[in-house]
Amino acid sequence: MNKGEATRQTILERATALASQVGLSGLTIGGLADDLGLSKSGLFAHFRSKDALQVQVLEYAAALFIDEVIKPALRAPRGEPRIRALFARLLIWPEHNDLPGGCPIMAASVELDDRPGPARDALVSQQKDWLDTLATLVRVAIEEGHFHKRVEPAQFAFELYAIDFAYHHSLRLLRDPNAVRRAQAAFEALLASAKV
Amino acid sequence: MNKGEATRQTILERATALASQVGLSGLTIGGLADDLGLSKSGLFAHFRSKDALQVQVLEYAAALFIDEVIKPALRAPRGEPRIRALFARLLIWPEHNDLPGGCPIMAASVELDDRPGPARDALVSQQKDWLDTLATLVRVAIEEGHFHKRVEPAQFAFELYAIDFAYHHSLRLLRDPNAVRRAQAAFEALLASAKV
Repeated sequence: MNKGEATRQTILERATALASQVGLSGLTIGGLADDLGLSKSGLFAHFRSKDALQVQVLEYAAALFIDEVIKPALRAPRGEPRIRALFARLLIWPEHNDLPGGCPIMAASVELDDRPGPARDALVSQQKDWLDTLATLVRVAIEEGHFHKRVEPAQFAFELYAIDFAYHHSLRLLRDPNAVRRAQAAFEALLASAKV
Repeated sequence: MNKGEATRQTILERATALASQVGLSGLTIGGLADDLGLSKSGLFAHFRSKDALQVQVLEYAAALFIDEVIKPALRAPRGEPRIRALFARLLIWPEHNDLPGGCPIMAASVELDDRPGPARDALVSQQKDWLDTLATLVRVAIEEGHFHKRVEPAQFAFELYAIDFAYHHSLRLLRDPNAVRRAQAAFEALLASAKV
């Protein structure tokens, strides 16, 4: 990584942490420059526009999610154990040290739904990839004989995503001390309905 | 309703529609005054602060939700039919004519989670009321003998809320043509797990 690339990574790390708190639309090149003690023109050289900054923050957050949630889960045995490992990672993800405001992608999902543009396009593409990843893990669990053949992978993915959304809401907005327990119970019920 | 109150209602209706698109933090008294062709000082007389405006928009949206979703469902017979009626209303709620950007309360749930203040406090209180309402409907379904005694009302409420969250995401962000079907299938699975 050369110096320019290292600076860009530092900026994106900080921008992603900020976006987790104030949302993507709360990020401005000027505000970020002040926060980092860098010149606005220097930041413009890296990102050129607010759109480009937003897209790169989404990409940075997605890469972090892949490293922290998906890759470790893929090291678990195929099928149900892998889905359990993924869910365990999802439970700790919104409390990642680099994300003081929880998951910035989940925040952006609500923030950008009515804002056409490159950031929304990037987000929709990421979200479809994520649902496809979940559906693939379900297909593997069917192949391994852990889940019934009648389980519809995309439906299971929707329901797992639903639990994750409600968990984030319960944890971050309601500060509900039962958030983890509720999410785990919902996940066990979903698994039980799918298991052979 | 006197003239001042009627004007206040008109302003809140427009502010709620805007909040559904740009979020509560995107609302400003100046921007709203421009949008409505009213003077900024006139709007200040009604709302006094951005905090007060946000709280009143949340209250306006919650009152609309009660009128459009909860009250009609309460006219259905007690127990499972009432929960089914509520869910049917939840499916059409994000496409309400007065809410071009979907449910403003759901948007605020993500937007305000890291923003302490009166709007967050009002929202948390509303959300707890909503989960309590759901739990009460479940208790009634148990009393009526439609649901098992072992169903935990707050857990069922969490899972129903989860489906609603994922439905909103699928409908509004992903524009998934299967959004209604997925939400209905998840709801039927949840009901089936609770039924005697």
